[in-house]
Amino acid sequence: MDRRNFLYGAVAAAAMSQLGLAQSKTHDMGGLQHPIPERPEDIVMLIYPGMTALDLIGPQQVLGYVMGAKVHLVAKSKDFVVSDTGVGIAPTKTFAECPPAPDILFVPGGGLGTIALMNDSETIGFLVSRAKSAKYVTSVCSGALVLGAAGLLRGYKATTHWAVRDVLPLLGAELAPGRVVQDRNRITSGGITAGIDFGLKIAAQLRGDDYARALELSLEYNPDPPFHSGSPEKAPGNVLKSVQAMYDPLNEAARQAALEARRKWVQ
Amino acid sequence: MDRRNFLYGAVAAAAMSQLGLAQSKTHDMGGLQHPIPERPEDIVMLIYPGMTALDLIGPQQVLGYVMGAKVHLVAKSKDFVVSDTGVGIAPTKTFAECPPAPDILFVPGGGLGTIALMNDSETIGFLVSRAKSAKYVTSVCSGALVLGAAGLLRGYKATTHWAVRDVLPLLGAELAPGRVVQDRNRITSGGITAGIDFGLKIAAQLRGDDYARALELSLEYNPDPPFHSGSPEKAPGNVLKSVQAMYDPLNEAARQAALEARRKWVQ
Repeated sequence: MDRRNFLYGAVAAAAMSQLGLAQSKTHDMGGLQHPIPERPEDIVMLIYPGMTALDLIGPQQVLGYVMGAKVHLVAKSKDFVVSDTGVGIAPTKTFAECPPAPDILFVPGGGLGTIALMNDSETIGFLVSRAKSAKYVTSVCSGALVLGAAGLLRGYKATTHWAVRDVLPLLGAELAPGRVVQDRNRITSGGITAGIDFGLKIAAQLRGDDYARALELSLEYNPDPPFHSGSPEKAPGNVLKSVQAMYDPLNEAARQAALEARRKWVQ
Repeated sequence: MDRRNFLYGAVAAAAMSQLGLAQSKTHDMGGLQHPIPERPEDIVMLIYPGMTALDLIGPQQVLGYVMGAKVHLVAKSKDFVVSDTGVGIAPTKTFAECPPAPDILFVPGGGLGTIALMNDSETIGFLVSRAKSAKYVTSVCSGALVLGAAGLLRGYKATTHWAVRDVLPLLGAELAPGRVVQDRNRITSGGITAGIDFGLKIAAQLRGDDYARALELSLEYNPDPPFHSGSPEKAPGNVLKSVQAMYDPLNEAARQAALEARRKWVQ
């Protein structure tokens, strides 16, 4: 009788139990049977200073609603990390406490904080160690540059935020079209908001298409971009030119970091 | 020469200054001139236990990229609040420290935590006091139920998450179609992911359409819902039925809370 329960994740499960809803081994949503795996999935999401909060929270919200799945926010220490727009987020696990064989290993993107990570040996070492036994190795936005810097995209089709797309091949990845790109067990996504599409695709691989459809409906994911300017191909020329100019120094910093990481880690 | 800078918000401004970018009174993005207001906007976002993190972070990410705007995450105390999927988020201001006349007053939605707020006198008192002098009074998802409980939607067209739409009229609001609904200075939105559309519409009202187009491009907001099930009208019948069944107890709890709040605060 937990069919109404999958929305609420670990924290709200306690609250929902006040409504008399207990957990069971099958998640029966109004006639749709969704078996919960014997071993609930471990979803490991790296968090770090300067990350883009929406890169993280898009997929965290989707996957946090997957009943039984355990979503870990993993950082170097338990100090909260501050996002590129000033949101302080609390880690739930340190690198040392992180499950050794995650079902999903995930890296969100960001600005200069992300670029700094590309040559941070502690973070690169953590990602390499967990990627070995992860079922899927994944990213949103410029998080792909960190995976690439760790040598984890060499020989794989991948994507990233449009403003740093040209940096990815420096790390041995083959740039591929698509908002979410899967090549074997590597799944990378476009910029920032692509994390919602990514999260739903991962949820479908974990629990099936109908489960992901139910999540899409719960999230009321029926987007209506007010300006239809969300890609370089769709934006008006003056807007594209202005935003590209804004990203020029970030792109250049990413390029330098990629060359440095390539010498150190991508062989 | 700060044209590349608007992306980075308060926190990353320091980092960007390492790249030699200083702030000026005009934000010139590659030829697009965007004057920054003399008095930067105060954007007040209520945060509370059990909120849906994506309701908050969608618009926070958009508005955090509006150069010069000050985004405050406001809670009863400085203790971090835990979202419905277990994300701990740090408040930046208490109720007592919150600016008295915000440009935007915003309430995110959630599950039982949101319903609890509808009859929490401290929160209702805070919202009523700030709404008096706010330029816009706004919400995403079931956040509208809290505005409604405070009497702030009486006589206004409004919307909310589809699963609790029928509760809104109990609080004196007129349910209106649309993913983002504006009636005078009240702006309410649909469920969870609607916060991104909402944030972009607010940004356009603060800084103009071209600025919002640039944000849309920076956020790579070119959504591609994998299952096209994101509204009751679009979802397959079996999926809709299952998700509705899941929401039944939440809807009933919201209805009871609305009746109680109406007696106390909505005259």
